[in-house]
Amino acid sequence: MRAGPTQEEIRRHNLGTLLRYVHVRGPTSRAELTASLGLNRSTIGALTADLAAAGLVTEELPRDHGRTGRPSLVVRPEHERVYAYAFTVEVDRLTAARVGLGGKVLDRREVPRPADVVAPLVEFIRETEASVPAGTTCVGSGVAVCAMARHDDGRVYLGDAAVLEEALAAGLGGALSESRTSAPPVTVRNVADLAALAEHTRGVATGCDNVIYLHGDAGIGGGIIAAGRAMTGHRGHGGEVGHMVVNPQGRACGCGSQGCWETEIGEYALLRAADRDGKGRQAVTDVVDAARRGDVVAQAAVRQVGRWLGFGVANLVNIINPEMVIFGGSLREVYLASAAQVRERLTRMALPACRQHVRLRTPDLGDDAPLFGAAELAFERLLADPLDAATS
Amino acid sequence: MRAGPTQEEIRRHNLGTLLRYVHVRGPTSRAELTASLGLNRSTIGALTADLAAAGLVTEELPRDHGRTGRPSLVVRPEHERVYAYAFTVEVDRLTAARVGLGGKVLDRREVPRPADVVAPLVEFIRETEASVPAGTTCVGSGVAVCAMARHDDGRVYLGDAAVLEEALAAGLGGALSESRTSAPPVTVRNVADLAALAEHTRGVATGCDNVIYLHGDAGIGGGIIAAGRAMTGHRGHGGEVGHMVVNPQGRACGCGSQGCWETEIGEYALLRAADRDGKGRQAVTDVVDAARRGDVVAQAAVRQVGRWLGFGVANLVNIINPEMVIFGGSLREVYLASAAQVRERLTRMALPACRQHVRLRTPDLGDDAPLFGAAELAFERLLADPLDAATS
Repeated sequence: MRAGPTQEEIRRHNLGTLLRYVHVRGPTSRAELTASLGLNRSTIGALTADLAAAGLVTEELPRDHGRTGRPSLVVRPEHERVYAYAFTVEVDRLTAARVGLGGKVLDRREVPRPADVVAPLVEFIRETEASVPAGTTCVGSGVAVCAMARHDDGRVYLGDAAVLEEALAAGLGGALSESRTSAPPVTVRNVADLAALAEHTRGVATGCDNVIYLHGDAGIGGGIIAAGRAMTGHRGHGGEVGHMVVNPQGRACGCGSQGCWETEIGEYALLRAADRDGKGRQAVTDVVDAARRGDVVAQAAVRQVGRWLGFGVANLVNIINPEMVIFGGSLREVYLASAAQVRERLTRMALPACRQHVRLRTPDLGDDAPLFGAAELAFERLLADPLDAATS
Repeated sequence: MRAGPTQEEIRRHNLGTLLRYVHVRGPTSRAELTASLGLNRSTIGALTADLAAAGLVTEELPRDHGRTGRPSLVVRPEHERVYAYAFTVEVDRLTAARVGLGGKVLDRREVPRPADVVAPLVEFIRETEASVPAGTTCVGSGVAVCAMARHDDGRVYLGDAAVLEEALAAGLGGALSESRTSAPPVTVRNVADLAALAEHTRGVATGCDNVIYLHGDAGIGGGIIAAGRAMTGHRGHGGEVGHMVVNPQGRACGCGSQGCWETEIGEYALLRAADRDGKGRQAVTDVVDAARRGDVVAQAAVRQVGRWLGFGVANLVNIINPEMVIFGGSLREVYLASAAQVRERLTRMALPACRQHVRLRTPDLGDDAPLFGAAELAFERLLADPLDAATS
């Protein structure tokens, strides 16, 4: 239990709230900020002045000022001067981007995932920093990884992922500190958690407070938002829905258990059911395309995986009662091709009260949802306390 | 997004924080309040004076004042003058209590559940109110029901439960308003949600922010606390873990699905496995006792149900990553008799990262956990805004 905030804490909170508003919604008039944030005009003016002095926003006259009278100044996030690095380390690709405040992608590169994932990301930072104009501020880096990441210290578990995470933090931190006195922080989190964050912040789940994002690749990950906040669990491992056992008579899973959801709906499950070799996203797309063209084996495979997809979604809907379930990664294609099977299972297995308001969706941000989420993760510290983070 | 609070909002927040502190922890010295709440002495003094003027706390000299110098006054919740009604409507019993601020049970009655559950509860209120001293304040009523309750409007779903809930609200509201100008509110919620709230507030899960409470009777309910708050889901139906399907080849469930967790671990499942007739809590206890005495059929039944109990717990541990799982209702006995099977399944099926810090426990508040939770629910409005609720 904690007592209420001090005046200075309130001011910092309000600075963060205002900056978050323009970061998420884009350039906004002072009049709209006054109405939306429930603060008076002079307070908005003072907060904006502080943020402008810190180089985080600019104010300008609206371009198209139709009414008579004094126009309300427009507050715009400084997306060219304030930025973060966002990276994704996925099963089959690496993505690196420099993202400006407001979520604008300034530089972007994507390569097939090599054995060493650290060197290309460090190289990206070095090259990008060399061309960044003077007077800019990097607030940090966020990394989305296909493995379990612990929230409190950002450490990644499973296999060699711990090694990866340490190397990433060291390599990225080193590259960033070359051009600065202190290295902005590097934070690592699970792909599904970050995709959920991105879709909740500026995607299909904007305004939805109870959301499950399912990310499919070789495995299945889940990012859960409950009452508007990431449901991270005790040590940040919440959302390992791929290891919910759905088929007690099923196949052995890499985790040591048997019949995990990902053994029934992961990429390998679809390819096995379709009697195909290959792996990765393209192989999944090929099966879905073949099913659309009338290949009966591919059609049966898609339906089978769709039924198991609906099975697990129904369980999660009963447990979590979400407003929206989002199908991302390779599950996007699988869901779109098997929506009938998914809905049939959901109707049969989920309680009416739990399922009656749930919406099934695909990501607005597409395959870049984890990348945008990594950027949001990097911006978190700035948005929580703008003046402190901007000057450190 | 909302701006920070006003001075008046902070004062109300601080009043609620102080009152909640003594409500949960009992009589507390001003010195401890000053240290724990991070407010200065004069603020604590002013807040306490406001609460005392509203009749919510008293201040007194400590009984055993060993040190020299001026003693720190002890702030004590007014448990005789400020109270709530708490009721549980369980499968086989009704419980009614008048609970004083601070969680002290002042009056209590328990009867086997009759067909009409409303009349006995209304009668309890009438009789109790007739003997309550003048100058007391009833802040509301909380009801724990074995059915799905929606949080936003307190409506109960499934079967005739909606009828029950309306009748409860009308009957209790009517009985309460007889002795007042306005009826204190009646709020209804699921047994498992309220047991979780009680154990989190003043039971085994105090200080744990990620908790799953499992309540067993004929069915299985779950109360989930994530990041310190009830995970209620989009419409308050979160936690319907009893309808997570664990056995696709399993039995038909009353919900229309097949192989739901409650068909494998509910009371009927244990009795069926033990080849016994009967129903209810006592029948479960009889099987567990028989197993302890060496009855091989009962032992096999307990082990079988224990394995399925561990199966579902493992799934929930992977999805939620709780710090603690609490086994309540009839699951208390089942868990205590089959802890080895539960742990074996948990070890085999849950990811090490998700399970390595989880503690398996039984309720500190025993079978009264839902009753204490119902009281906490009734006190919520008072603790959120003490002066407003106390005078309304």
